[in-house]
Amino acid sequence: MGTVTRPRGRAPRQDRSRATRQRLLEAAVDCLAEHGWSGSTVTVVAERAGVSRGATQHHFPTREDLFTAAVEHVAAQRSAALRDLLAEKDGADRTAVARALVELYAGPLFRAALQLWVAAANEDGLRPRVTALEARVGREAHRMAVELLDADESVPGVRETIQGFLDMARGLGLANVLTDDSARREHVATHWAELLDRALTQPARPS
Amino acid sequence: MGTVTRPRGRAPRQDRSRATRQRLLEAAVDCLAEHGWSGSTVTVVAERAGVSRGATQHHFPTREDLFTAAVEHVAAQRSAALRDLLAEKDGADRTAVARALVELYAGPLFRAALQLWVAAANEDGLRPRVTALEARVGREAHRMAVELLDADESVPGVRETIQGFLDMARGLGLANVLTDDSARREHVATHWAELLDRALTQPARPS
Repeated sequence: MGTVTRPRGRAPRQDRSRATRQRLLEAAVDCLAEHGWSGSTVTVVAERAGVSRGATQHHFPTREDLFTAAVEHVAAQRSAALRDLLAEKDGADRTAVARALVELYAGPLFRAALQLWVAAANEDGLRPRVTALEARVGREAHRMAVELLDADESVPGVRETIQGFLDMARGLGLANVLTDDSARREHVATHWAELLDRALTQPARPS
Repeated sequence: MGTVTRPRGRAPRQDRSRATRQRLLEAAVDCLAEHGWSGSTVTVVAERAGVSRGATQHHFPTREDLFTAAVEHVAAQRSAALRDLLAEKDGADRTAVARALVELYAGPLFRAALQLWVAAANEDGLRPRVTALEARVGREAHRMAVELLDADESVPGVRETIQGFLDMARGLGLANVLTDDSARREHVATHWAELLDRALTQPARPS
């Protein structure tokens, strides 16, 4: 049971381990989006990722570990991809940023997160994990939106303006779960991107 | 197998039948909200409503019939209750109406609808029924919002303003599924009710 130190072998082995973990996380998100929580078992994900059951359990001891890690990891990846995209387009205007934020909620990641979220409402073992995950992912989405929209949260009302816009994006994501709602979403997002820009440029009257 | 005509007995029997149907529909919504689709069987609902299995199947031949009828019926009841409430309060201002619309999505009906919606994403037998239901309920919510907010959809952008506001209300409803989000919702809804009023009073610049 002694530890064998293999300094030269370590880096490639870590790379392989990271790649395996990554494949499992992506397969888990795809599986959730397609089959829902009840159809998403560790066995199904391991097969889909082409990883042995043992290796899967080494990375993720429980089903809850696997699926909450998957949603969190893929959410972080998407956020990073959006940041990079917008950093490349120097001077992307605020309405373009707002429309890109809405699109983040239209794809399979949101569908997967929604499945986990709704399952957690009825499963005591899942609820605390998903509640904590939702809080972290929500905070990160908010932070990213404030930064990318170049908003100043010290101005009264700006925080609520951005929160409501992200709630709208989630509502549009929900509307896309059963049908392709992209045409309607395009109209609503374009119009609300203007409303958002106006609200951030001319903050609401004190009431 | 002949039909027995009992004119005097018919009215009370119809009332009893309507009351039974009503109890089943309400039990079905409560059951969906609490246990999700996988935990919502016809047997569980019949027991909860105190109705025999036979009488339940007389009203709703299939599980899909029962649960889609339940969500539609209770949604219609809630809309009617909101209309009555606002009709009583003569001159309720537009921001109060907007906040009341948001609250429609914060309770057990939305939770039940969400469970059905998400289950339909992975069940071929359920999907067409729920897609059609969602379209009807969504149209009715939109029509009601236009009327209660006293909005003029012939003005460019007004339709998208209201659609986005209802998407925001659904997003806020989603955020209330796992945790009590009422304090945050109150802030966001109050603020966006003002922004909505401003958008309807001063429609967006042509872009």
